[in-house]
Amino acid sequence: MTFKELYAQAPVWLQSKATETEVVVSNRIRLARNLTSHRFVHRNTVEGLNQVLDQVRAAVGKCDYFKNCLSVDMIRLSTIDKLFLVERHLISPLFAEEGKRKGLFIGDREMLSLMVNEEDHIRLQALEPGFDLVNTWRIISKADDELNRTLDYAYSERFGYLTTCPTNTGSGLRASILIHLPALVLTREIDKVIRGITQVGLTVRGLFGEGTDVSGNLFQISNQTTLGQREEEIIESIEKIVHQIIAYEKEARETLLKDAKSQIEDKIWRAYGLLKNARLLSSHEYMNLSSAVRLGINLGLIRDLPAQCLNELMVLTRPSHLQKMEGREMESVERDMVRATFVREKLGV
Amino acid sequence: MTFKELYAQAPVWLQSKATETEVVVSNRIRLARNLTSHRFVHRNTVEGLNQVLDQVRAAVGKCDYFKNCLSVDMIRLSTIDKLFLVERHLISPLFAEEGKRKGLFIGDREMLSLMVNEEDHIRLQALEPGFDLVNTWRIISKADDELNRTLDYAYSERFGYLTTCPTNTGSGLRASILIHLPALVLTREIDKVIRGITQVGLTVRGLFGEGTDVSGNLFQISNQTTLGQREEEIIESIEKIVHQIIAYEKEARETLLKDAKSQIEDKIWRAYGLLKNARLLSSHEYMNLSSAVRLGINLGLIRDLPAQCLNELMVLTRPSHLQKMEGREMESVERDMVRATFVREKLGV
Repeated sequence: MTFKELYAQAPVWLQSKATETEVVVSNRIRLARNLTSHRFVHRNTVEGLNQVLDQVRAAVGKCDYFKNCLSVDMIRLSTIDKLFLVERHLISPLFAEEGKRKGLFIGDREMLSLMVNEEDHIRLQALEPGFDLVNTWRIISKADDELNRTLDYAYSERFGYLTTCPTNTGSGLRASILIHLPALVLTREIDKVIRGITQVGLTVRGLFGEGTDVSGNLFQISNQTTLGQREEEIIESIEKIVHQIIAYEKEARETLLKDAKSQIEDKIWRAYGLLKNARLLSSHEYMNLSSAVRLGINLGLIRDLPAQCLNELMVLTRPSHLQKMEGREMESVERDMVRATFVREKLGV
Repeated sequence: MTFKELYAQAPVWLQSKATETEVVVSNRIRLARNLTSHRFVHRNTVEGLNQVLDQVRAAVGKCDYFKNCLSVDMIRLSTIDKLFLVERHLISPLFAEEGKRKGLFIGDREMLSLMVNEEDHIRLQALEPGFDLVNTWRIISKADDELNRTLDYAYSERFGYLTTCPTNTGSGLRASILIHLPALVLTREIDKVIRGITQVGLTVRGLFGEGTDVSGNLFQISNQTTLGQREEEIIESIEKIVHQIIAYEKEARETLLKDAKSQIEDKIWRAYGLLKNARLLSSHEYMNLSSAVRLGINLGLIRDLPAQCLNELMVLTRPSHLQKMEGREMESVERDMVRATFVREKLGV
């Protein structure tokens, strides 16, 4: 795989078969790992970090899950390329910033990826569409085991995996669900639901993680604690709660259809009409309009558009994606124009 | 012609060939006349008004322009029927209110109409699409002459035609142009233009005359004074000024296309997208969206829709028209739903 192939299309993993896609867009698990006999990243030297990178590269080379992987030298990347990887959810916003020595390995279908020398020596991530966390855990866990055959992880019998930030110590696992909750937002029940989620020890964030805004009614729900719980327990408890949220959202959709059918239909069709006709479209507006259209697909109102198309557009219409696609830097207004044209083309207008 | 035939379709006069339709939607002339040996309307008795009505009916019967005309007894009409006639521009809002004895005659193609016992005994009106005031004057003037053969008009050698309100005394003529000025509104030059119009003795009003709001960037420009000027002079001076306004509007459209092309295109296509997709549409929103779409047609951006269709919809989507069409009274939300459906059908969605 080459870098060019990356931005020629939407992430391949998005096309996998998935469950519960009416409400959940995708799920993700990441594991934080550090190597023994190396200082944590922010206490390390360039030389030390280089050694970490070399060791991880060697381990990745022996890992089946990273066969034919794309190895990215972060130092060679332009700002747009880095932001492109953030938009793709392949690296964190933190990782896009300056750093001493960082590496990135992107596995087949972009489903697995591995950041070297982010906050921890290793941040391994698996992304899947829909809501089958157990399957995602199965995959990432195997990849982790494979890497562990070559690499010595910093591990304490008492605490579990040792990490730079204590909040990750233990399993080093964070599972996230990207969930679409338009009806809970419209019925204004969302605050109550978020309070409930927070009370059971999960966090709710925006599309790009910590500190980012919620856009297009898409919420990221993930576990907060990693200490003192087995991985399976963490995943099981998230699954249980997310199933409950899915039920709330579906109930709210029923309520809307019962109490405000024409208003909802109006909102949905107007959004579809705007996506198919706008000549200028900001990222933010795309997210909001596509949220309404996605709801329209889920409710069976819009039948000529697969939700898959919206998922792909959500990635492909982001600022750096558009610029990579056009092969040049563009100001905001020009991007809005290119985005609108691109969306119309994809919607077959 | 029957009343039922009226609301089955848009006014037939709208379909006539017309000039300057890129900016002017329609033009209208009305003449105020009173009969000698009858008191003015608000000083008259029921008996006296009945006599006026009878005399006018007899005269209309002999008038070629009112052959096969529809004679409407205002007292028999429901509120919706009266509002329907206001929406149709066949009667004034004042005429729709309670009154002692009122009559209405609607000529062929709804082009000519005559209110009896509104503010004056006779209000004769001619409506034509586009901007050929001279032709409209030719028609109404002949009809007026025909009526005058049977009826004795109150006329003073010194003042001209005598009317209830002194502002109409003289020619009794008011010529109005319904003009679409979206670019002057967008470039915010409209206030300056309106000040200019007022300074030369014309007035600017909303779609339904005095005291009504401007909606959909449609302005009614008409003469204020009727005294001391020959009819041809009044018409000539309006024509001259309106030609100037048309030139300003066209210039503003050029400016917009030069300075804000993508914003204008975006605005136009979004409006078209909303008209084709909305499931709830208020009268006010229809007017605003159709203003943008009309501009899109004028600028050659939208090619699959004749402006004629928008003109017809402007009339047919008004509240009483929708209720007559559906054959029942409807609340506002239901009307918005029926309006949206009707618009989509007419636009061939």
